[in-house]
Amino acid sequence: MIRAGIVGGTGYTGVELLRILALHSEVEVSVVTSRTDVGIKVDALYPSLRGYINIAFSLPEVEGLSECDVVFFATPNGTAMLMAEQLLSRGVKVIDLSADFRLKDEKVWSHWYGMEHACPELIAEAVYGLPELNREMIKQANLIACPGCYPTAVQLGFLPLLEKGVVDVNHLIADVKSGVSGAGRKAELSTLMSETGESFKAYAVGGHRHLPEIKQGLELVAGVSIGLTFVPHLTPMIRGIHATLYAQVQCNIDDVQALYEQRYASETFVDVLPQGSHPDTRNVRGSNNCQISLHQPQGGQTIVVLSVIDNLVKGAAGQAVQNMNLMFGLKEGSGLGTIALYP
Amino acid sequence: MIRAGIVGGTGYTGVELLRILALHSEVEVSVVTSRTDVGIKVDALYPSLRGYINIAFSLPEVEGLSECDVVFFATPNGTAMLMAEQLLSRGVKVIDLSADFRLKDEKVWSHWYGMEHACPELIAEAVYGLPELNREMIKQANLIACPGCYPTAVQLGFLPLLEKGVVDVNHLIADVKSGVSGAGRKAELSTLMSETGESFKAYAVGGHRHLPEIKQGLELVAGVSIGLTFVPHLTPMIRGIHATLYAQVQCNIDDVQALYEQRYASETFVDVLPQGSHPDTRNVRGSNNCQISLHQPQGGQTIVVLSVIDNLVKGAAGQAVQNMNLMFGLKEGSGLGTIALYP
Amino acid sequence: MIRAGIVGGTGYTGVELLRILALHSEVEVSVVTSRTDVGIKVDALYPSLRGYINIAFSLPEVEGLSECDVVFFATPNGTAMLMAEQLLSRGVKVIDLSADFRLKDEKVWSHWYGMEHACPELIAEAVYGLPELNREMIKQANLIACPGCYPTAVQLGFLPLLEKGVVDVNHLIADVKSGVSGAGRKAELSTLMSETGESFKAYAVGGHRHLPEIKQGLELVAGVSIGLTFVPHLTPMIRGIHATLYAQVQCNIDDVQALYEQRYASETFVDVLPQGSHPDTRNVRGSNNCQISLHQPQGGQTIVVLSVIDNLVKGAAGQAVQNMNLMFGLKEGSGLGTIALYP
Amino acid sequence: MIRAGIVGGTGYTGVELLRILALHSEVEVSVVTSRTDVGIKVDALYPSLRGYINIAFSLPEVEGLSECDVVFFATPNGTAMLMAEQLLSRGVKVIDLSADFRLKDEKVWSHWYGMEHACPELIAEAVYGLPELNREMIKQANLIACPGCYPTAVQLGFLPLLEKGVVDVNHLIADVKSGVSGAGRKAELSTLMSETGESFKAYAVGGHRHLPEIKQGLELVAGVSIGLTFVPHLTPMIRGIHATLYAQVQCNIDDVQALYEQRYASETFVDVLPQGSHPDTRNVRGSNNCQISLHQPQGGQTIVVLSVIDNLVKGAAGQAVQNMNLMFGLKEGSGLGTIALYP
Repeated sequence: MIRAGIVGGTGYTGVELLRILALHSEVEVSVVTSRTDVGIKVDALYPSLRGYINIAFSLPEVEGLSECDVVFFATPNGTAMLMAEQLLSRGVKVIDLSADFRLKDEKVWSHWYGMEHACPELIAEAVYGLPELNREMIKQANLIACPGCYPTAVQLGFLPLLEKGVVDVNHLIADVKSGVSGAGRKAELSTLMSETGESFKAYAVGGHRHLPEIKQGLELVAGVSIGLTFVPHLTPMIRGIHATLYAQVQCNIDDVQALYEQRYASETFVDVLPQGSHPDTRNVRGSNNCQISLHQPQGGQTIVVLSVIDNLVKGAAGQAVQNMNLMFGLKEGSGLGTIALYP
Repeated sequence: MIRAGIVGGTGYTGVELLRILALHSEVEVSVVTSRTDVGIKVDALYPSLRGYINIAFSLPEVEGLSECDVVFFATPNGTAMLMAEQLLSRGVKVIDLSADFRLKDEKVWSHWYGMEHACPELIAEAVYGLPELNREMIKQANLIACPGCYPTAVQLGFLPLLEKGVVDVNHLIADVKSGVSGAGRKAELSTLMSETGESFKAYAVGGHRHLPEIKQGLELVAGVSIGLTFVPHLTPMIRGIHATLYAQVQCNIDDVQALYEQRYASETFVDVLPQGSHPDTRNVRGSNNCQISLHQPQGGQTIVVLSVIDNLVKGAAGQAVQNMNLMFGLKEGSGLGTIALYP
Repeated sequence: MIRAGIVGGTGYTGVELLRILALHSEVEVSVVTSRTDVGIKVDALYPSLRGYINIAFSLPEVEGLSECDVVFFATPNGTAMLMAEQLLSRGVKVIDLSADFRLKDEKVWSHWYGMEHACPELIAEAVYGLPELNREMIKQANLIACPGCYPTAVQLGFLPLLEKGVVDVNHLIADVKSGVSGAGRKAELSTLMSETGESFKAYAVGGHRHLPEIKQGLELVAGVSIGLTFVPHLTPMIRGIHATLYAQVQCNIDDVQALYEQRYASETFVDVLPQGSHPDTRNVRGSNNCQISLHQPQGGQTIVVLSVIDNLVKGAAGQAVQNMNLMFGLKEGSGLGTIALYP
Repeated sequence: MIRAGIVGGTGYTGVELLRILALHSEVEVSVVTSRTDVGIKVDALYPSLRGYINIAFSLPEVEGLSECDVVFFATPNGTAMLMAEQLLSRGVKVIDLSADFRLKDEKVWSHWYGMEHACPELIAEAVYGLPELNREMIKQANLIACPGCYPTAVQLGFLPLLEKGVVDVNHLIADVKSGVSGAGRKAELSTLMSETGESFKAYAVGGHRHLPEIKQGLELVAGVSIGLTFVPHLTPMIRGIHATLYAQVQCNIDDVQALYEQRYASETFVDVLPQGSHPDTRNVRGSNNCQISLHQPQGGQTIVVLSVIDNLVKGAAGQAVQNMNLMFGLKEGSGLGTIALYP
């Protein structure tokens, strides 16, 4: 059994990790930390876990955590970078669901996250945990930077086009819609039900932290600098991300559908829907799947890619477990074989 | 492997059966019927099942179904009673999620369901599939009448009080709130999002079909005729039932909390919450659990029982699988070990 | 023109007052206060008011407020009692939407609100602002204690039965469901969309602050002490309260429907629906109406009253304006002639 | 008083017309038709209108309707074109909220709407009822084709850029999200709460009927043929449209913000928000306003326009009344001075 620790177990990605790991046949959750809830039983805070998780929250201390084989950071940005080194040096693998190790350029990171990086020497070592792109590196990694939720949906949607080099990379558009759980479990006015229910809005159009992450990922694939307009929106639902991606075809491409089907043929968690489909976020709710469909309206030059995930699963906890499975030589889908909750 | 058939696979209870059975390690779904979708692949209608269910809808015919070990009826009322006899005579066990065999009094059934019963001779044989009440009979049964969603939440909530005989059975009140999926997957004005979203109402206060079912169940337990006021409500969410039950204490009872904890101590799927709790439907969403809490406001004579289930799981498909497990000698919780989807 | 001030203009009842008063032909909103937003334009915080309200938030100071003819307190409990006396002494009428002056018994108030009352000498003078009960006193009043949202729906629902003395007052039950805006505009975990969306729960079953208020009101009408079980619930919508009320008939009553129709025949804002109806909260959303329907299931002894209001209008700001109209001799419905927003 | 008739009074645009006209000081609704509900009182079907509309549904017959001064068609496509001529010939003004007279090219209309046009001779006479574009023609018109909901939000968002000729018209993108009331009040599986709640999807990416309407409108303004990719989405709320529009700047433009502010300076119902804003559909819910904000992310060449309306008001009934006001020489905003319902 792999002993797993979760730092920051009281947020939505933390509790989602617990939901997945509690049923993972090869993992035992041995530590869950929370500064504010030390001593409280996990299932007292989350009655959905009654009967499945039988431990109490503890302080986030290296001592206790280093008895784990792997530690997940489901913390706000700025925490993992303070503890990762000590854990790694004691032989603990680290999977960070926050943004601390996602950006390779320390200065860009500081610019967007508004603080100095506490552990820049680990940035190069960290592997960006998008298995569909970096599977082999992940298998060897000790430190994983899990992609953000928006970046997962957008990159999986754009990858085949950019790898193939068939679209104009200077004018990519990602119009992306997220459920409110993406904002986390924080007492804030802006995500009250009275504020977000029955309403729809864009936010951070001027610049969102996931923009440099998406650009970094796509530029690595494209091999050139790209131009991307990324507009995130808040949609009145709890889980789910729907990315609507626009690209202009610039060289001959016969069959976009076939391109995607081939690219993802052996991927367990990326599902290219039949021609003419429109993916619906409910069909991946609670599952680790990304469903994608392709359109070329009126046979024109604009390719429209629709890409949906559950932001808390493929966009966070599920992908983290997928990474863990790879790191420990397990079947990649272990513990992730759940079916979306419809309706 | 148990070969299972599902008649009426296109409704919400049908697709929920598929979600559960697809991951059940000892069951293979071999037939799924739908008159209107014959030949269409199940996962074309329900993309959430892509990769898990790989068959097409077929006609609901005894021939094909009799190759199954068990057939679930997830049909509108009035269908199971037309096919059950033929299937039973061929050695197929039948689990009916509709109301056809729930009421023991044929005339009462006809009154509430507005049709004559096509197969009254099977009524006596049918076992009411509430495992917490009828476990031993279920193990021997060939024909199960699965309880309705409201009756499940209400009976589990009232059982300990009525078994113990400590409340006034003439003035029981069940104020129950349901998500809209309880109305089924039917093209109807009244369950449009524009009609049910952001709104709340009672309905059928004059008399709902689940009233005689609840009374029958509670009277068997109480051993006397009871007086029950049952008011169902529609709440703007998809899944979940919340029963708020009121009873007047009439003889001495020291500790209602202990009474419930003892009654359900060995029940896997009934969870009595700690004193002072308020169960939340989200904490059972997608799971087969019933969570219950007890209150006696201001130390008065009124006991308030709060009882929540997921109407499609413990209130329908999950409970049906729980019955199947018992009938086939499997572990009662096989295939039902999922954790509620929170948030 | 009546000059109106609003203290606490940044909560939901405050902004609802602004929505109503901005279009009231005989009122000019001259002061809106907010400690935290001084100097900020009201419509910068509430873009829905652009073009209708053209002033900025100011500090809540007696000086400025005493130039108003009437001041509304849309503040948390404990604020109005600190300022009311000074304003009244300067001839300003005060309409308090908080709970400060609702309970006539100072000790009971302190018990439920957890603080000492700062101005007990005004409690007797304050008129409880339920126009359907206290219209004539309201016309003469200088200080109004507006009823809470739950108390409004419950009292209007029970009034005719208790005035007539036809039910058992020892076993009244009020099972009430509220939208989340009732919790106010506060940064709290418990009212996040991720916490309250797609879920339903009861809360404060052990005792809610509105219980003594409802009891006080009903006992005045009944003329005797009553027994009331009050269970509030949170329903996943923004606006609306649905009260389901249960009472046992104890003396002869021919026609409950006629009793209610006669009682409310001349009330503009209480609408008794035709026999057999089920009121829907959406049909009063944004309006000052209370819609009521009556049921006596199976012709039994239990009367079920269904009573719906918009918690922010008839349950708060609308009723406050209705009181203001009465106090200033205007038409009772001035500024309140809006139609509910359906769908 | 203007006597108004509404043909098709049982859909969402019909009942919204009733909500607005019932409070319009210069209009009396004298006829409301519905084939399926003849003789039923309007407020029996729509209890929100109790006390405001006191007539019954009648058959849609020219005879009765010709006693009106103006007739609104809130019917499915294909109905207005059968009756408009007869009404016009009797001196009745006609305002069509359906699509029958929106497209100037009869063949294009037949292609997208799947039927032959029954009254092509009136197409030229019909004025496209977007007051911000065609105000003077509307004042003279007898037959108005009210814009669709998507076209209203998209055209108001793009107009200033296209009139000024500053963007590349070959690569316009309109990513638009609508609440489900846009699908109308029809018994359909796809708009059940269980299907649309808590989920998000695109639809009709291959081609939506509003595409030719938007193109026609924008091309008239631009003076050239345009290339537009239009992707509609269904968002889990009832009311509201949010258009996210993308255009590439191609010639010098100093100040997009000023361009929009000047263009709409004298428009009552188009409100350009301050720089940096993000409009929220809730802030126009129930009102006739369009709120717009402008962004140019990272100072690049892509202009992002955010434009929100209430699809049933500015996108349908409200705009229809705005047209009526112009046609009858009333104040353009008569009866439309309502404030959005927040929260």
